[in-house]
Amino acid sequence: MPALLKRALFQVNDTPNERTSALSSVSNDGHYISIRAFVKPRSQAEEQFPFEWAFAGTNKDINVTKVKDGVVKQDFNFGFDVNVYLNIPNTHRGTVQTVWTNWDSGCIAEHGTVYPGGSDQPGVKFFELWQPVDPSKEDLVMVSSNTDTGKSIVFKTDSSSFQGLFIITGEWSQGYLAKSGESTLKGLNFIRTVEKSQKVETLFQYGVDSEKFPSPTSSVTKGDIVDSNGIKWEVIEAYQ
Amino acid sequence: MPALLKRALFQVNDTPNERTSALSSVSNDGHYISIRAFVKPRSQAEEQFPFEWAFAGTNKDINVTKVKDGVVKQDFNFGFDVNVYLNIPNTHRGTVQTVWTNWDSGCIAEHGTVYPGGSDQPGVKFFELWQPVDPSKEDLVMVSSNTDTGKSIVFKTDSSSFQGLFIITGEWSQGYLAKSGESTLKGLNFIRTVEKSQKVETLFQYGVDSEKFPSPTSSVTKGDIVDSNGIKWEVIEAYQ
Repeated sequence: MPALLKRALFQVNDTPNERTSALSSVSNDGHYISIRAFVKPRSQAEEQFPFEWAFAGTNKDINVTKVKDGVVKQDFNFGFDVNVYLNIPNTHRGTVQTVWTNWDSGCIAEHGTVYPGGSDQPGVKFFELWQPVDPSKEDLVMVSSNTDTGKSIVFKTDSSSFQGLFIITGEWSQGYLAKSGESTLKGLNFIRTVEKSQKVETLFQYGVDSEKFPSPTSSVTKGDIVDSNGIKWEVIEAYQ
Repeated sequence: MPALLKRALFQVNDTPNERTSALSSVSNDGHYISIRAFVKPRSQAEEQFPFEWAFAGTNKDINVTKVKDGVVKQDFNFGFDVNVYLNIPNTHRGTVQTVWTNWDSGCIAEHGTVYPGGSDQPGVKFFELWQPVDPSKEDLVMVSSNTDTGKSIVFKTDSSSFQGLFIITGEWSQGYLAKSGESTLKGLNFIRTVEKSQKVETLFQYGVDSEKFPSPTSSVTKGDIVDSNGIKWEVIEAYQ
């Protein structure tokens, strides 16, 4: 079933904090996108690019294995990773291994290690706490277990011009669109929307090509090709 | 303004977790009650008394001072504390000093130290993360800043028979009622309710005297005395 997770806490080493509005969308078939937008950018660089990080992938870009009841291992291979796209030095490359533990409260604790200096250098441990919210609600409604069986639609584009993924879970949609071979901020586009009373509200929209995302209200079936301002998006999943 | 805070995380020393559904109600005038109910009790003792902790107080039992923008010091003096009532050994007595820091995300980080072995013994640091929710909504709707100006009603009872506090913030109410001089589980009563579409739903109700709480739908004014199954409750605050 589609899921929407809001991050409550991000901790590297000993210091917990949460400076972003971070939402991860996971489709019914396991495609995913996570966008962490700064709530209050604190520098010119953060004003210019108000995202701590973003990544996305299809279900081929993640490997989930059960460890025991309430605990799963998730190895992320990131079809898209902002840091890789921008060639940011001293950031992790390759698979990130994480362990997800369900708490009684309903939150999910994610523990992992990244290797910004390379896999032969010491790793940096991180901890992220995720609160599941009900994707079928227009508000951020905390839920202790995800039972939503509603809308889950995924659009993908992958050409010599652009790569992108746009995931609709319930009332919420998130997408990225990256210009091929650009590798600068100019090539990046992000969007997050929520549908409130049949009206789409855009929570953020970033990038010169951000008008090229599909409409969150598209009525589509799997296999459809949708044109949005010149970009051809393939519907790779459609539960409605 | 009235506030309702849901705890996302409780950490003593190095191990974060959240085994409870913990909600703190804070009235418009600063009266408070916090009840942490185990979601999945794990022992016979926890089945019998499914609460990690509960405390409450009036605005005379707390001292709030501003440290700097986004940071306040809160010294809790607890009019009522389950551990004190039950004379549980190796639990803190007296004021608990805490520091509350607003995160950009809207969550509030509470750091403090308790002294279970007495103030001359080493303290135990704790960290709790609180997510503000909208008390005017029947769902647990996350909010980044509290703007609710709605219902805030507080009932107090304090006699030779019972002490208790019952706080209504928006659609949510929480209360404790403790039999005077009993000091065992038999003397303890708790309640948490939420009003959904004009209908009161009881989320938990504990104790042999738990029918003596006021009605969450009471229409009252400050100074009223309300009788509920033999207990006289004084309305010490009433904004509606």
